[in-house]
Amino acid sequence: MDLETYLREGRMQVDQALDTFLPAEGLLPSSLHRAMRYSVFAGGKRIRPLLLLAACEAVGGGRDDALPAACALEMIHTYSLIHDDLPAMDNDDFRRGRPTSHKVFGEAIAVLAGDALLTEAFILLSSPVGNRRLPPAVGRDVIQIIGRAAGSLGMVGGQVVDMESEGQTIDFPTLEYIHTHKTGALILASIQAGARLGGADEPAYAALSEYGAAAGLAFQIADDILDVVGERESLGKGVGGDQSRGKATYPALLGLQDARGRAIELRDRAVAALAPLGGAAEPLRRIAHYIVDRSS
Amino acid sequence: MDLETYLREGRMQVDQALDTFLPAEGLLPSSLHRAMRYSVFAGGKRIRPLLLLAACEAVGGGRDDALPAACALEMIHTYSLIHDDLPAMDNDDFRRGRPTSHKVFGEAIAVLAGDALLTEAFILLSSPVGNRRLPPAVGRDVIQIIGRAAGSLGMVGGQVVDMESEGQTIDFPTLEYIHTHKTGALILASIQAGARLGGADEPAYAALSEYGAAAGLAFQIADDILDVVGERESLGKGVGGDQSRGKATYPALLGLQDARGRAIELRDRAVAALAPLGGAAEPLRRIAHYIVDRSS
Repeated sequence: MDLETYLREGRMQVDQALDTFLPAEGLLPSSLHRAMRYSVFAGGKRIRPLLLLAACEAVGGGRDDALPAACALEMIHTYSLIHDDLPAMDNDDFRRGRPTSHKVFGEAIAVLAGDALLTEAFILLSSPVGNRRLPPAVGRDVIQIIGRAAGSLGMVGGQVVDMESEGQTIDFPTLEYIHTHKTGALILASIQAGARLGGADEPAYAALSEYGAAAGLAFQIADDILDVVGERESLGKGVGGDQSRGKATYPALLGLQDARGRAIELRDRAVAALAPLGGAAEPLRRIAHYIVDRSS
Repeated sequence: MDLETYLREGRMQVDQALDTFLPAEGLLPSSLHRAMRYSVFAGGKRIRPLLLLAACEAVGGGRDDALPAACALEMIHTYSLIHDDLPAMDNDDFRRGRPTSHKVFGEAIAVLAGDALLTEAFILLSSPVGNRRLPPAVGRDVIQIIGRAAGSLGMVGGQVVDMESEGQTIDFPTLEYIHTHKTGALILASIQAGARLGGADEPAYAALSEYGAAAGLAFQIADDILDVVGERESLGKGVGGDQSRGKATYPALLGLQDARGRAIELRDRAVAALAPLGGAAEPLRRIAHYIVDRSS
């Protein structure tokens, strides 16, 4: 398989589905629906939806049944970016090279666009289109998996601790808490939701969960490294932003060399976990390499 | 039945269930979980949960099966208040006589506590405890009903149009749009979710929906009237706040007398819709009177 083609085609499918599932811009209130679409279609890599689809297919599931949940994940990811960028939070003016939501639409609409995207994700997860040929119990499990990963004991919790740690000297366990919650939880949920939608049995679900946990943390470390060494163009935001804000990162705590070593170790652990799944898990293996290698 | 006793006992049950369902304050990050509980336990009237429980019982359903969804509704209502109070929105320092979330915990935590409460609602709606003895398809429908009412075509949409209309001269259809969306949608959803959880058949569901639509609008008109004539103590916030902000209200557009007339007309329409349900709907009838009469 050619990974570039695989990712590009997957992204096109996800983008098309997102366009279908999001309320049309013409619907009242149009400022809100414009803001929702502005941030969703801001050039994201669609890593979470692609991981969900790949996990679903790794256990023999069909892509069509998994697309709604894949889009719901991207809506949740997008809402979290809009709120993280707010003046009261990270106060970022740019994201992926474009002005952030509150710079374009104002702070109130940015808050509400985030709220609406989060809500829309759960509307989609519980909609008939999201469960066409699946038993309702599977749909319910997927909402649980994604909801818990996004909530106060998952992503939102990680964002709180990250914020509260700014400018503080933090220890390694706190850093791991931040990363496994703020980024890792939703990536793990992508994999687990895909596994559940694809009908994974217990051993396959466990193997994929191990992959998801390791890949999620590797992804965040790679992001941290890119923040230090990456080029402005490649991330679309200022480089070294974490450092200047006194944010906790792997390179800051371990040094660049050891951070890279840890990312590679996690990548290899993720790939090793997939052994029982054979050839159907090849895209997941390649994505693990893609995630880590972009930072080295 | 004695309505006071009925409401007080219902509130105690809802509060107890909320205490069980919300993450404990001791859980990390405790600032977040404290903020979530601070706003949930800020003395709300629990109208939405009580309407859900009453609708469920009106069609012969059991209260236990409906309590999780009732609590989820209150979490969504609470998140919407926290975000509405933010400096970028209504910029309110007090709510129900207590400092608002961002005054106590800071703006970032207030945004995130709202996000977490919204997410927690869907975790609860999809959790096994929320669906113990109910078919999964019922749980899925309830998530649809509540999600759609809360999202961009419901409550959030209403908040956007309300905000965008501030200081503008608006017409009656716009005012009705704001109220049926910002407040009405979630009240209607309370009734519809209760009906679905209680196993309502089609005619009962339709009757309850008519009740919910009329009662929801009556509730908002009564709130508008109270804002003009109420006493500081009874609302716990400044009186006339809507007017001074140039907010669209019924009394402003129709005059106090006609606004009262409209509320009474809606109350009577709500009560009339319940005729086919007989004695089991008595609490709903009494609540409709309670909603409107507190403003006259």
